[in-house]
Amino acid sequence: MKAPTFELYYWPSIQGRGEFVRLALEEAGAAYVDVARLPAAKGGGVAAMRKLMSAHAGGLEPFAPPFLKAGDLIIAQTANILLYLGPHLGLVGESEADRLRANQLQLTIADLVGEAHDTHHPLSTSLYYEDQKPEARRRATAFVHERLPKFLGYLERVLEHGGRRHLLGGALSYVDLSAFQVIEGLEYAFPHGMAGLAPSIPLLLALRDRVAARPRIAEYLASKRRLPFNEDGIFRRYPELDVG
Amino acid sequence: MKAPTFELYYWPSIQGRGEFVRLALEEAGAAYVDVARLPAAKGGGVAAMRKLMSAHAGGLEPFAPPFLKAGDLIIAQTANILLYLGPHLGLVGESEADRLRANQLQLTIADLVGEAHDTHHPLSTSLYYEDQKPEARRRATAFVHERLPKFLGYLERVLEHGGRRHLLGGALSYVDLSAFQVIEGLEYAFPHGMAGLAPSIPLLLALRDRVAARPRIAEYLASKRRLPFNEDGIFRRYPELDVG
Repeated sequence: MKAPTFELYYWPSIQGRGEFVRLALEEAGAAYVDVARLPAAKGGGVAAMRKLMSAHAGGLEPFAPPFLKAGDLIIAQTANILLYLGPHLGLVGESEADRLRANQLQLTIADLVGEAHDTHHPLSTSLYYEDQKPEARRRATAFVHERLPKFLGYLERVLEHGGRRHLLGGALSYVDLSAFQVIEGLEYAFPHGMAGLAPSIPLLLALRDRVAARPRIAEYLASKRRLPFNEDGIFRRYPELDVG
Repeated sequence: MKAPTFELYYWPSIQGRGEFVRLALEEAGAAYVDVARLPAAKGGGVAAMRKLMSAHAGGLEPFAPPFLKAGDLIIAQTANILLYLGPHLGLVGESEADRLRANQLQLTIADLVGEAHDTHHPLSTSLYYEDQKPEARRRATAFVHERLPKFLGYLERVLEHGGRRHLLGGALSYVDLSAFQVIEGLEYAFPHGMAGLAPSIPLLLALRDRVAARPRIAEYLASKRRLPFNEDGIFRRYPELDVG
């Protein structure tokens, strides 16, 4: 039986939360279509995504992208998509405990991602960054000085007390891929802040390097399928927020 | 075989995120111990909670409370605890699709809860509210005027397109209990804001009332086990943030 082609729906111009799903699909060599990045003439574009978001046939509408169509299932919320994909793609252990641990770590990474986003939008997502710059600076300072050491120190400890090479036991999981993405994003957004933290997170940085060197991930990162980081996404390089 | 007694670990003086877990345990009539609320002489208190958080034996340390001990498992992240408890307590459907849908909605509720928290701490969780009041007012205004209608309108539509009485199909799930808690918290924190929204969310308010009237929930809410809302928790009544 042929595996279904997954359809990923996410904003076409940013890595954003969709990237955590893309990395899992790419590492597994899964057949998938990144629907909103296709031209409208081929059934793609943001309009196709919005259409599916407001179609109530057969299920639960997503609150927001990303969402994944897998056969008849439409699954939203990044960690939930990975909870579903993990076993299908061989990117998580088989026991209930393995899956709960993976989901727990993924949700902690999601919390970190949310806080990284709010450094440039501390007051409102509907205001421009330019309209909340002083507040962004204060939030970014607290983020880099207090929250990042706490989150990354936690992930470093998890590596240290586990197998050191993977966040969960002896094998690659989707959580390792997400950790890669978070480190990449943080280094893009906060190069000075991350340089200061680097000496305290050697295992995490080594994990990032190993993930980047995996053949399918390396091929993906070099391809046009990998969007560059930019100032519309979650991780934005605003020099005034890169507190040292 | 007797079901194990669950051990819940959470800050003893607030409802907070622990409350979503408590409501599921209470509705199911499950045997559980709220460990940090026990006296230290009985092995309780915050010290007991912190001890388990830094003990690395046999698993993954939690990043933060709440976490649940169930036999040998220690499970953290609220939505992950409910993902685990749902099937054990009969508070979610049996199919993979049911569980993914429940988790998707729970994660969307978690996003709403996080944004509600940030209304009083838009800049930093390590600063006092008093040190970020003007920013809190701006964030609360955007929250009540833009984010609340979006989140609650979404949940209302899910009810409307589903069975109208439950968020997921024809039976009570842990997501209904969490929706109850969010509405209660929002009405506590933003009475004027919620009064303005009330006409647009009749199904959600009716769901809240039905949950409150369930025998075990009603008994729980009237008991000392239910902590009152207060100004240390997620939902805080600061009149200056209750924009109309």
